[in-house]
Amino acid sequence: MAHNNVKNLLTEQRNNLSTNIDQMSILEMVQLMNHEDQNIINAIANVTKSIASAVDMIAEVIQKGGRLVYIGAGTSGRLGVLDASECLPTFGVGEETVIGIIAGGDQALRNPVENAEDNREAVITDLQNINFNHKDILCAIAASGRTPYCVSGLEYAKQLGAKTIALACTEYNPMFEISDTNIPILVGAEVITGSTRLKAGSAQKMVLNMLTTCSMIKIGKTYGNLMVDVKPTNEKLHHRAVNMLATILDIDDETAEDLLKSAHNHVKTAILMYLKSVNYDQAIELLANNQSRLSEALKD
Amino acid sequence: MAHNNVKNLLTEQRNNLSTNIDQMSILEMVQLMNHEDQNIINAIANVTKSIASAVDMIAEVIQKGGRLVYIGAGTSGRLGVLDASECLPTFGVGEETVIGIIAGGDQALRNPVENAEDNREAVITDLQNINFNHKDILCAIAASGRTPYCVSGLEYAKQLGAKTIALACTEYNPMFEISDTNIPILVGAEVITGSTRLKAGSAQKMVLNMLTTCSMIKIGKTYGNLMVDVKPTNEKLHHRAVNMLATILDIDDETAEDLLKSAHNHVKTAILMYLKSVNYDQAIELLANNQSRLSEALKD
Repeated sequence: MAHNNVKNLLTEQRNNLSTNIDQMSILEMVQLMNHEDQNIINAIANVTKSIASAVDMIAEVIQKGGRLVYIGAGTSGRLGVLDASECLPTFGVGEETVIGIIAGGDQALRNPVENAEDNREAVITDLQNINFNHKDILCAIAASGRTPYCVSGLEYAKQLGAKTIALACTEYNPMFEISDTNIPILVGAEVITGSTRLKAGSAQKMVLNMLTTCSMIKIGKTYGNLMVDVKPTNEKLHHRAVNMLATILDIDDETAEDLLKSAHNHVKTAILMYLKSVNYDQAIELLANNQSRLSEALKD
Repeated sequence: MAHNNVKNLLTEQRNNLSTNIDQMSILEMVQLMNHEDQNIINAIANVTKSIASAVDMIAEVIQKGGRLVYIGAGTSGRLGVLDASECLPTFGVGEETVIGIIAGGDQALRNPVENAEDNREAVITDLQNINFNHKDILCAIAASGRTPYCVSGLEYAKQLGAKTIALACTEYNPMFEISDTNIPILVGAEVITGSTRLKAGSAQKMVLNMLTTCSMIKIGKTYGNLMVDVKPTNEKLHHRAVNMLATILDIDDETAEDLLKSAHNHVKTAILMYLKSVNYDQAIELLANNQSRLSEALKD
């Protein structure tokens, strides 16, 4: 790896607008960062078709019982774990469906692990530990697109015959040479040279959110724009579940509260029980017969 | 807490554009999410002055040896930990300067911890565990602005006489009634009702990035837009450090490599050694006498 390789990377270039950022007023710095963040939205708008292809692949894999597995180092790895961790409270699916792996293991969620991103062997062990196989889909995340941990992970997944997605903020990179679907988000040079936790990180977060949100909608995890598979693990989510029932079924809050209880806190089941006048076990069976899709089960 | 409180929250409202999102094509879903993300940039543009005030407070606290402490539950907590964890590789400062605390402890980084966000007592223990005191500044993060864990943390910090910042995606909320500086980022209803991991989360990430990036620049942690306090913990960062030296000093890569080695891998010290023709110990002393600011030390 020659130095000029790094120097020429889009993500490592100097931003002309911020050359003198240390001489600016704080307000000017904040305004400049906000101005730069606009590039993220535009860069994502340019690749919505690639994102949609990736969503399509993910939905197919999950529907067949496979898993979406994110890998990344540093900020990219943390963002994968972040996106994966949100799928349980939002859609009621946990690690059996979306898994985030960070180079260096979970201690890297808080502190940089020396040379973790350069370790080509560790990723194979990490993937073997979750029994990653050809039914799963791997999404490698790296601002530069050249993180050795990610490149090696993609090569391993390909060997196994698994589908692969690469998400990076450069146009040409080693990850894109391997993966089935590439998502290049060209956000441009950061306000602090090479600080890809900023625009690149925000772009990655937004795209990962799209990958899980849209694939979960596609496989029937929402009803309209309501998260009927929410796991009410706290007071806010419990109230949200009650509100959802009250809204969808046009019933009062107390009735919704009782209904939710009789449906073992599961909104989707509660809706079925109410609208189809069935008991809990019958509702569960109806859902099972309809791939857990509420709209299909209602027509059944 | 009455149900209608939750129902009326901006972050819990239904988005008219996504009512039928489950009937859309995948490409339409992705485009809608990208369209909605535009609101984040606009919402932040509206509050750049509040963000600048917060940065000003943080820079002052850190310069006096205090710490910036983030608290949050769920996604908000994870984003605080994310932003804090990036300060070491970027600016060479670790937990002695920026700390992220998540409700429920580090296990919540991966999995929801039942009722953690409703625990008003736990946050006090968590803050006591890091010896949070009046010299520190607390930044509470919550999409709704009403998370009991955060409200209680702000009350505790205020009692101690510490400065406080509240970051939320609603205009009126209990957190804003307590804190010194409020940052309301009104991103509007999410495409999935109440799924504040999406726009609200992205907005929080961007603002947290501004808080640390701008305060670190303010206290002299960069030279122009170059991260001269980078801790080269992997190959990429090592090459970035060498490139920085080569660029700033207009020397070849080999000379830069040797210089970096003799400066114990610290770019800022290397620059001083080269430009002031001093040895490592003298350079360290020069930095110490100038609050670690490179531009000041160069004039010394």
